[in-house]
Amino acid sequence: MPDPFAYLDATAQAELVRTGAASPLELVEAAIARIEQLNPQLNAVIHPLFEKARAQAQAADLPDGPFRGVPFVMKDLLGGPAGEPLHNGMQFLKRLNFTSPQDTYLSVKFRQAGFISVGRTNTPEWGLMGTTEPAAYGPTHNPWNLDHSPGGSSGGSSACVAARMVTVGHGGDGGGSLRIPASMCGIVGLKPSRGRVSFGPGMGECWHGMANEGVMTLSVRDMAGILDSMQGVMPGDPYAAPTPARPYTEEVGRDPGRLRIGLMLQRPRNDAPLHPECKRAVEQTGRLLESLGHTVEIAHPEAYDEAEWIDHWTHVVNAHSALTADEIEAAAGQRIGEGDIEPYAWRFVEEGRKISATSYLASMNWLHAWARRLASWWAGGFDLLVTPTLGEPPPRLGDMGGPSADNLAKWERNLEVIPFTPANNASGQPGLSLPLHWTPDGLPVGVHFVPAYGQEDVLLRIGSQIEQAQPWMDKRPPVCA
Amino acid sequence: MPDPFAYLDATAQAELVRTGAASPLELVEAAIARIEQLNPQLNAVIHPLFEKARAQAQAADLPDGPFRGVPFVMKDLLGGPAGEPLHNGMQFLKRLNFTSPQDTYLSVKFRQAGFISVGRTNTPEWGLMGTTEPAAYGPTHNPWNLDHSPGGSSGGSSACVAARMVTVGHGGDGGGSLRIPASMCGIVGLKPSRGRVSFGPGMGECWHGMANEGVMTLSVRDMAGILDSMQGVMPGDPYAAPTPARPYTEEVGRDPGRLRIGLMLQRPRNDAPLHPECKRAVEQTGRLLESLGHTVEIAHPEAYDEAEWIDHWTHVVNAHSALTADEIEAAAGQRIGEGDIEPYAWRFVEEGRKISATSYLASMNWLHAWARRLASWWAGGFDLLVTPTLGEPPPRLGDMGGPSADNLAKWERNLEVIPFTPANNASGQPGLSLPLHWTPDGLPVGVHFVPAYGQEDVLLRIGSQIEQAQPWMDKRPPVCA
Repeated sequence: MPDPFAYLDATAQAELVRTGAASPLELVEAAIARIEQLNPQLNAVIHPLFEKARAQAQAADLPDGPFRGVPFVMKDLLGGPAGEPLHNGMQFLKRLNFTSPQDTYLSVKFRQAGFISVGRTNTPEWGLMGTTEPAAYGPTHNPWNLDHSPGGSSGGSSACVAARMVTVGHGGDGGGSLRIPASMCGIVGLKPSRGRVSFGPGMGECWHGMANEGVMTLSVRDMAGILDSMQGVMPGDPYAAPTPARPYTEEVGRDPGRLRIGLMLQRPRNDAPLHPECKRAVEQTGRLLESLGHTVEIAHPEAYDEAEWIDHWTHVVNAHSALTADEIEAAAGQRIGEGDIEPYAWRFVEEGRKISATSYLASMNWLHAWARRLASWWAGGFDLLVTPTLGEPPPRLGDMGGPSADNLAKWERNLEVIPFTPANNASGQPGLSLPLHWTPDGLPVGVHFVPAYGQEDVLLRIGSQIEQAQPWMDKRPPVCA
Repeated sequence: MPDPFAYLDATAQAELVRTGAASPLELVEAAIARIEQLNPQLNAVIHPLFEKARAQAQAADLPDGPFRGVPFVMKDLLGGPAGEPLHNGMQFLKRLNFTSPQDTYLSVKFRQAGFISVGRTNTPEWGLMGTTEPAAYGPTHNPWNLDHSPGGSSGGSSACVAARMVTVGHGGDGGGSLRIPASMCGIVGLKPSRGRVSFGPGMGECWHGMANEGVMTLSVRDMAGILDSMQGVMPGDPYAAPTPARPYTEEVGRDPGRLRIGLMLQRPRNDAPLHPECKRAVEQTGRLLESLGHTVEIAHPEAYDEAEWIDHWTHVVNAHSALTADEIEAAAGQRIGEGDIEPYAWRFVEEGRKISATSYLASMNWLHAWARRLASWWAGGFDLLVTPTLGEPPPRLGDMGGPSADNLAKWERNLEVIPFTPANNASGQPGLSLPLHWTPDGLPVGVHFVPAYGQEDVLLRIGSQIEQAQPWMDKRPPVCA
């Protein structure tokens, strides 16, 4: 490090391939070299796919998509290309050498876009934690400070991108799992709108539409281009997100207009003081937005301050965890015992198995009604809500998770750290975390942007305007030096 | 009868208002007169709203929408304007004089389009039957033969439209409840795609997205125009249908292109011989489609022949029925006893209360996976599936339902009569029933058109082409004579 490609974004790397300045194999070899150099410290890539990547880079049928030849990583959760390891952060599936039974549509779309996966990345068990410290594969370390969490549940992917091993990391987000690790690692994370990215062919929806797949990137233009590649209704999808008015790449650099923006400078319900670094991040962003001509007020939807929404979200996640256990047992042909699964995940299963269909559906109906109350804030005149992505800077490893017997108790700690992000999961709205602040200790603090449902275009326009005004691409973690 | 407006469609009535040839009040008075004349025989309108309609027709703020001044009816299910009766076909809610607590978005959209509701229409308890014979309000009769069922669950509305009391009847469709009554009454019925029409503000989705609201009309152009008025994401909606490429009115008369069409000439699983009149209806339609230049084959998705889909659909409906019971009990402040509800609906509640969240979600996952298999038929090259709307011509009243103690047993009979329509509910695809055949006895037999998810445009183009080739507007039931 650094090689000539290390500090480029995906769009720039693809441009090198398109102009003949670099070959896909050169990009892949460089990424492999960076992973080999840094992964021993970070433990981010848990299934290297180096030979497969080299073969794809040299194959005649490497698709001629917009990101032809660009290396990236996929999270080891929810599937991917057929035959690749699929352990979902579980010792149970690791022991069985479980693999994806079929290509996901998303993995096919990545391939059609020209991406080459160089590895699968670490995740907490079932992606249920906001940190990445599974018993199955051990903790992933934050590239900005190895003692700290990279966030989760897509923390393996975020560490890879932050450390410039690759430019793009895939993940999923059911409570913040793309935005949390993006915030903790100082990169860009976007949870798409419900229905924007298909879960097919294996699933119709995930967590009743509360979870969505997407990527973390270094730049807003990469996010726009990849969203164009990922989005779109696939055969048999149960529903859609509103169709984009134009390609997302065309939103980059487009005038966002003069937006009415509310800043949230407190935790929901004001249940504790907001960490001063998180407050500072939003205040500074507010001043920047004002300087860019937007109307900025201290305001947020009252619905955030209702106490029940996180309980209903948890209730629904419990039920789906129990279903996941049933499905994994059926696929594996054996029962999951208490010792096969970490204590906190086991509690989700146990709680979920007690829930009746009517109780589950009552929680979903509550969340649907709450989403209406939430949406009324945007319908009432605001274009954008700005919150801290997290309630505090990246905690130390072992604080939110870890393989110790008491990680059951740490679940509550997770909810303390992530008071903002699950709201968009419950409502289906998209959310963008941008790396706009660093603590005096050099830890990243993300700022979170939430438009109305379906409005990724608003996020990309404002994100691109902010990136131009306050670029972050040159800020790199010490591990890259 | 006939008055000068009786045999026009909604578009023509609206044109009279726009040109000043008729006033909204004249249209409303004429509709009231027709209802007063025919409803005693048909029992379709159960809550007349004549004074409210007259007041709206004369109000200065009658919205200047595309259907300004056109009378229509709404079903007494799922809500409507605040304060109107909402009995859902239940003796329990009728006894309590229950009313809608708030305007539904859809009722507001109807009002903004200029429509004036002259009454609420009959429905079986909770809309669970394919006929309209509730104990609460007695049977609605088919205008083509008073001894026969008008279909259900939107059978009050379909009888109104078929008998030309009004041109447009609102309804909902969770297993065919717009298409079944349209077929049995010889009118046009379209179930929109999942996510096309909002259930807000009171609901996020209905039956996990399997049920959708819409209308039955006399003409395809009316359906297109009203779909433009009804569609569109509202604040807080959990998801959407793919955004239409252009206004639906512009699909009317537009060249559908040369479509590849599969005809289904057998019941799913070939579980019994298809009724010859239903088979004939589809065969004749196939010949018509060929004459219009389309490629027509005898073909249907294999997924229709899987035995389990209707069981999973029923399982999900059971769970939602139990939830509905819980919600009505909470709203009414009293428990629903076995005697408060018809035997078949009570069985849904009892079955639903036994279902665990994981069992419910396993059925939803099964249906999502099945929807993928189903969709692969369209993705594989077909544009349109054509089936009979129903397995047989309209049965006699008392055959599928009725307030007798044994109506529990009649539920199975309902599934015999409606083997085709629930598939689109389970998958989210739209479906259109057109009045293209009549039995020698003069009973209507609908033909059912199913495109891929989100493709109402395909339905409106082909529907309009067929209507031009084989118009049905001049066929009127004897009760109109």
